[in-house]
Amino acid sequence: MTKHNFYAGPSILPQEAIDETIKALQNFANTGISLASISHRSKQFDAVMDQAVAIFKELLNVPEGYHVLFLQGGASTQFAMVPYNLMKKKAVYLNTGTWSKKAIAEAKLFGEVVDIKGEDWYSIPKNFEVPQDADYMHITSNNTVMGTEIRTDNDYGVPLVADMSSDIFSRPVDVSKYALIYGGAQKNLAPSGVTFVIVREDVLGKTGREIPTMLDYRTHIPKKSMFNTPPVIPIYTALQTMKWIKSQGGVEVMKKRNEEKAATLYAEIDRNPLFRGTVAKEDRSVMNVCFVMEDKYKELEADFLAYCTERDMLGVKGHRSVGGFRASLYNALPLESVKVLVKAMQDFEAEKA
Amino acid sequence: MTKHNFYAGPSILPQEAIDETIKALQNFANTGISLASISHRSKQFDAVMDQAVAIFKELLNVPEGYHVLFLQGGASTQFAMVPYNLMKKKAVYLNTGTWSKKAIAEAKLFGEVVDIKGEDWYSIPKNFEVPQDADYMHITSNNTVMGTEIRTDNDYGVPLVADMSSDIFSRPVDVSKYALIYGGAQKNLAPSGVTFVIVREDVLGKTGREIPTMLDYRTHIPKKSMFNTPPVIPIYTALQTMKWIKSQGGVEVMKKRNEEKAATLYAEIDRNPLFRGTVAKEDRSVMNVCFVMEDKYKELEADFLAYCTERDMLGVKGHRSVGGFRASLYNALPLESVKVLVKAMQDFEAEKA
Repeated sequence: MTKHNFYAGPSILPQEAIDETIKALQNFANTGISLASISHRSKQFDAVMDQAVAIFKELLNVPEGYHVLFLQGGASTQFAMVPYNLMKKKAVYLNTGTWSKKAIAEAKLFGEVVDIKGEDWYSIPKNFEVPQDADYMHITSNNTVMGTEIRTDNDYGVPLVADMSSDIFSRPVDVSKYALIYGGAQKNLAPSGVTFVIVREDVLGKTGREIPTMLDYRTHIPKKSMFNTPPVIPIYTALQTMKWIKSQGGVEVMKKRNEEKAATLYAEIDRNPLFRGTVAKEDRSVMNVCFVMEDKYKELEADFLAYCTERDMLGVKGHRSVGGFRASLYNALPLESVKVLVKAMQDFEAEKA
Repeated sequence: MTKHNFYAGPSILPQEAIDETIKALQNFANTGISLASISHRSKQFDAVMDQAVAIFKELLNVPEGYHVLFLQGGASTQFAMVPYNLMKKKAVYLNTGTWSKKAIAEAKLFGEVVDIKGEDWYSIPKNFEVPQDADYMHITSNNTVMGTEIRTDNDYGVPLVADMSSDIFSRPVDVSKYALIYGGAQKNLAPSGVTFVIVREDVLGKTGREIPTMLDYRTHIPKKSMFNTPPVIPIYTALQTMKWIKSQGGVEVMKKRNEEKAATLYAEIDRNPLFRGTVAKEDRSVMNVCFVMEDKYKELEADFLAYCTERDMLGVKGHRSVGGFRASLYNALPLESVKVLVKAMQDFEAEKA
């Protein structure tokens, strides 16, 4: 039974990563006990953490001066940790929808927010000015809900912070352009329950604010993400996913594959008279492809969803806040799954013609 | 290869819970995909969350007016969340060592802390007065590092908050005596990465303090712990562990078994001339049994640890801050493992006599 998993997150992971996790739950590193029951202070798990940090840095070519952390609480906790640690007075947020708005709400607890938004959520704002006295600028690089994405590493003149929950490892990233990158790992990297952070050490410790210990990045850096018990299983799976990415040729290969998958699906959306894409073409996400039925076929949406389900596709329904369809094309999703979806769109068109 | 797992946490879990988790990682709820890759918004995972909350309430007989939450960040994050949510001006902390001290440090960021401690860490302070104008009193019911435990549900006249990370589900608890109970679940309940909270709703929303969204218990209550992506795998395993506890007869049976295991080991510690317990007898933990070599045999400690390792025992080494030995006897540890340890102590005594 092969299912085609288009869930937006948690979402498809490499089968190899899941298989290795299962083996470790049976007998971890020849300890004779399960990964679920091993002390995080054991030398065997310590090695997992070291390897996870090392391969993360290797895959993304993380420069000197940056630390890679594996924390808990998801991007939603980072929405507060970022201003807690970095905001002295003012920060700029590029507001591209749902997740940006949540990040902005938290930042407002800590200082002034310059909220840059466009006319709607179907494109990325352009031609804006960034106040150069801001402590940092924050972007959500990929928007899972609306399906827009910023796929270039830009220079805005102030320290740049990015939520890359849903596109980390989907392409090479010039980490040197960022002060801090964070994300929930439950899309391209791991099962839910672990949050990655890449932080340049020199941006920390400048606010004078008292920070609760667990919310202070400086707690976790010297403790190598083991100040308290880390989420052992998700970190282990993340390591296996990163090994898989490396074995496939790294993030350059992921980028090529992801772009091919996205191009295949968007081409069908643009060709098929029943469907239309919702996002401005230049801002379309490579990770989350959002589309709807053309207005005159609107009543066929439920039919098409049922059609997808019958053909073993999961998660094609759009986010509850926007409706329509969304197909998430994370690293581990094969082109084959995209072709099954495209075929379904074509067959559906033929049936309804 | 049967290993005897005495780790203090993460630690031994029921084999049934691990086996069920492995099955779900292979094919979750007949979805055809892995538990690692399923959306937390799927009806299948939604059912897991509902069942986990229901059986948690059932096993501990949680009264009306209380909510059970599954969060992230461990007890260390709760150290800050508790005062963030509950402290108006002043709180009392019963200081019983390592974990209490960490909780106190966070509370001091939010108000005045009355720090009640004894003369040393080998007993629980007694005969103290609790200021009745305190917003709450905080206890660490079981101290994994020192091996002391408060095994009764007391009334201190002010709202009571307990860190029960290491003894939840080890005995029946009169939840009505508490305003809030929390804990990292990676001992008696689940793999690391999930934090349980039992909170009485009427204690919330009284400080007037602005609380970051993820740190506010009121965020998570109406969202049934799914405001953001929850740690899916640890919650699933927790559900399996709770089903196992129920199948064994519930927390009354756990209490009886745990007390028998502890009595067996403490009896040998008290009998064997090579060893001595470190904790006042009336305050000895049922979960974490701490002991050392008598002073004149001190140089044999490393030998005894090697002796345990040879006999397939893991995690008998004492916490790095106190040395000696520590055997953790969580719910899933069979009496058989305790007997293996006792036998090792006896054999070691005979060899060295």
